[in-house]
Amino acid sequence: MTLIDKLKRGEIPSHLPAIAVREQRDPQVVVDRLLSGRAVMPQNSGKTLPQPVVIGEGFRTKINANIGTSPDHDHQAEELKKIDVAVAAGADAVMDLSTGARIRDTRRRVIAKSLVAVGTVPIYEAAVRARDRYKAFVNMPVDDLFDVIRDHGADGVDFITVHCGATRAVVEMLARQGRVMDMVSRGGSLLVEWMIYNDRENPLFEHYDRLLEIAREFDMTLSLGDGFRPGCLADATDRAQIGELMVLGDLTSRAREAGVQVMIEGPGHVPLHQIEENMKIEKSLCEGAPFYVLGPLVTDIAPGYDHITAAIGGALAAMHGADFLCYVTPAEHLRLPTVEDVRQGVIASRIAAHAADIAKGIPGAMEADLAISRARKALDWEEQARHAIDPELVRRMRSERPPRDENLCTMCGEFCAIRASSEAYRLLNIKK
Amino acid sequence: MTLIDKLKRGEIPSHLPAIAVREQRDPQVVVDRLLSGRAVMPQNSGKTLPQPVVIGEGFRTKINANIGTSPDHDHQAEELKKIDVAVAAGADAVMDLSTGARIRDTRRRVIAKSLVAVGTVPIYEAAVRARDRYKAFVNMPVDDLFDVIRDHGADGVDFITVHCGATRAVVEMLARQGRVMDMVSRGGSLLVEWMIYNDRENPLFEHYDRLLEIAREFDMTLSLGDGFRPGCLADATDRAQIGELMVLGDLTSRAREAGVQVMIEGPGHVPLHQIEENMKIEKSLCEGAPFYVLGPLVTDIAPGYDHITAAIGGALAAMHGADFLCYVTPAEHLRLPTVEDVRQGVIASRIAAHAADIAKGIPGAMEADLAISRARKALDWEEQARHAIDPELVRRMRSERPPRDENLCTMCGEFCAIRASSEAYRLLNIKK
Repeated sequence: MTLIDKLKRGEIPSHLPAIAVREQRDPQVVVDRLLSGRAVMPQNSGKTLPQPVVIGEGFRTKINANIGTSPDHDHQAEELKKIDVAVAAGADAVMDLSTGARIRDTRRRVIAKSLVAVGTVPIYEAAVRARDRYKAFVNMPVDDLFDVIRDHGADGVDFITVHCGATRAVVEMLARQGRVMDMVSRGGSLLVEWMIYNDRENPLFEHYDRLLEIAREFDMTLSLGDGFRPGCLADATDRAQIGELMVLGDLTSRAREAGVQVMIEGPGHVPLHQIEENMKIEKSLCEGAPFYVLGPLVTDIAPGYDHITAAIGGALAAMHGADFLCYVTPAEHLRLPTVEDVRQGVIASRIAAHAADIAKGIPGAMEADLAISRARKALDWEEQARHAIDPELVRRMRSERPPRDENLCTMCGEFCAIRASSEAYRLLNIKK
Repeated sequence: MTLIDKLKRGEIPSHLPAIAVREQRDPQVVVDRLLSGRAVMPQNSGKTLPQPVVIGEGFRTKINANIGTSPDHDHQAEELKKIDVAVAAGADAVMDLSTGARIRDTRRRVIAKSLVAVGTVPIYEAAVRARDRYKAFVNMPVDDLFDVIRDHGADGVDFITVHCGATRAVVEMLARQGRVMDMVSRGGSLLVEWMIYNDRENPLFEHYDRLLEIAREFDMTLSLGDGFRPGCLADATDRAQIGELMVLGDLTSRAREAGVQVMIEGPGHVPLHQIEENMKIEKSLCEGAPFYVLGPLVTDIAPGYDHITAAIGGALAAMHGADFLCYVTPAEHLRLPTVEDVRQGVIASRIAAHAADIAKGIPGAMEADLAISRARKALDWEEQARHAIDPELVRRMRSERPPRDENLCTMCGEFCAIRASSEAYRLLNIKK
């Protein structure tokens, strides 16, 4: 039985009340949102997560951190270390995107180690297996792909990205329309290469019921991937992107009927003025399914700073309805991220998510802002650090340039605005 | 004669056509916007700037970098070095906010060195002088303040922040209303302390005509400061802030009648969902005057990362009408910034400004994005670096983890989406 089956029978999972407390919502609201599909709670039925989360409308915006080896940088220990750093920095989920050697071993270690939900993109392992067994991914038999997906379920994966909407019809729509960058989704482009080479339909679309069966078996949440997400601003919000999204909307409805939880993946590279419409059309085409966005990056020209570019887009996206932000690190477009890149990426995403949660009126979102502001007014520096997103950095930066008066800081010194305005209003009250 | 006087007589300054070319606009558009006050071109009449810029509606969003000594960190050479770094990173103006010793000497060196417009906040020097001459700022005679402003004009300052709108009426409005952080503007809070201590009106408001005379004499642009800008999200968009803005709107109109250019300074700390309204109300209350914003910071809890917080707010602000972004560095709220903090601050602001310029449809804004995207599709890494906001960083980060195939990168290696999708669409075209 899946979570949805249980909820339909009136069974409340034991961890749900604690989640409702953390979200400052009534448990019934959580149940209703899950039943309606407007929120998901990814957790493989074969395990118990220490920190399951609810992702969707009305709840705190969640953050995912991608980790994983690649053929060119294949260091399992480094990737495992990234999980600790990402979760410590506030990630609510991690995705293991490994494509190096020992993929299954890495995945099992990731799952064993992670306190938070783990997602994967099974097509990557299918590609590696097919390369090793049949010399090239394009020679992959369809059964192998589903075998890999079943392995992921059996290993305890909580959610999987599946590019079910990258159909022949959308491939051809893109061919007619043209694009600057065609496809930039790794899984999507591999699938499309397979489809064209073999002159076949997308097997994840053609055999979607088979996918749903496996998802039900392990209660894996489907994260319907956007193979046609725009890879540059010039390609944003075009017919290929929206055409695929319409397919995903249809598949969302089929998954819900099967009692399988679904979220939708979204762009990508999107100019600032198109973000709101992108969020709203996902909600309307996909019947309110949680939207999981990568970025969006609001310019193409900032490699090395794409955590900032994504924080801008992510904040606006989450304000307008995105529920789950996939972090982007400073290494995006350049190389596999380092451990420090991962930390920077998670923090930038958290800033974006938090700013949006305040804008969305998420219960409790303003509490930390109010606490740090009161500490600022009181010139209480340790209390400021305690409420900051990165307390250690606050203490370190301040200590690098110690002020003469320890109540002040080296920016203004004796000309401190807080000191001056406190004195002014003290005088005003005396004179009254 | 001021720039506005000359334009009214039909005289076109020699540097204006070059500015129009850089903005990809007709020179007449530049002239019309300057005459209407919807744009300004700060330049002291006593000098010729190598890189004057136009700031306002329909033009590229500009960036300011603050530099300057403080009593607690008083190193002139370091501050001068920041100018080189800020301008190299793309700053369009710098403000010298020095409050250390040798203020006038520092200012003159800043002006001599800077290729871009230089702004100051004369009240800071007035505060330092009064402390030295009369033991405390509150003992400052009004004439001394105007003497300092005249000195700034004589030295070649292009624009000055003057908190003319922090009137007794607004001070009392704030006292009635209450706030978490009262005032966080350094100049504004000093002035208010002086006003309450001496039981006087704000001299910059009371003697505004005298200020306009000095501004005319040196053709300094007035940047009407926001002494009551909110210092935390909880204080945003309140009656004190909007009350002061209404006074600034009135003063804008008086400055325009006097042929003096004006821009308006804005918040501050503003939640994401209040940014659009803040930009629109400035434009309506101040008759379209250019809006120069500090941030806005969209959360209070991210000291150490406030360049990111400000990039989120700045991008949204500029999309909705802000014309000039004052950078925020990672050191904000903690200490005086280092040279590297300055560089990080300028780049984060440029990303925000650029993203907004694309959204606003500023002519030519998308060119670099298209060029880098085409280079990405071609897997041409050196061409990507050339079009990036920080080419050196792109080259360095990529070289830190060299890929096996130099056409690819270590993120995906052989499973490169661009390679796969190019192959897919090549095959599709062959089969057709």
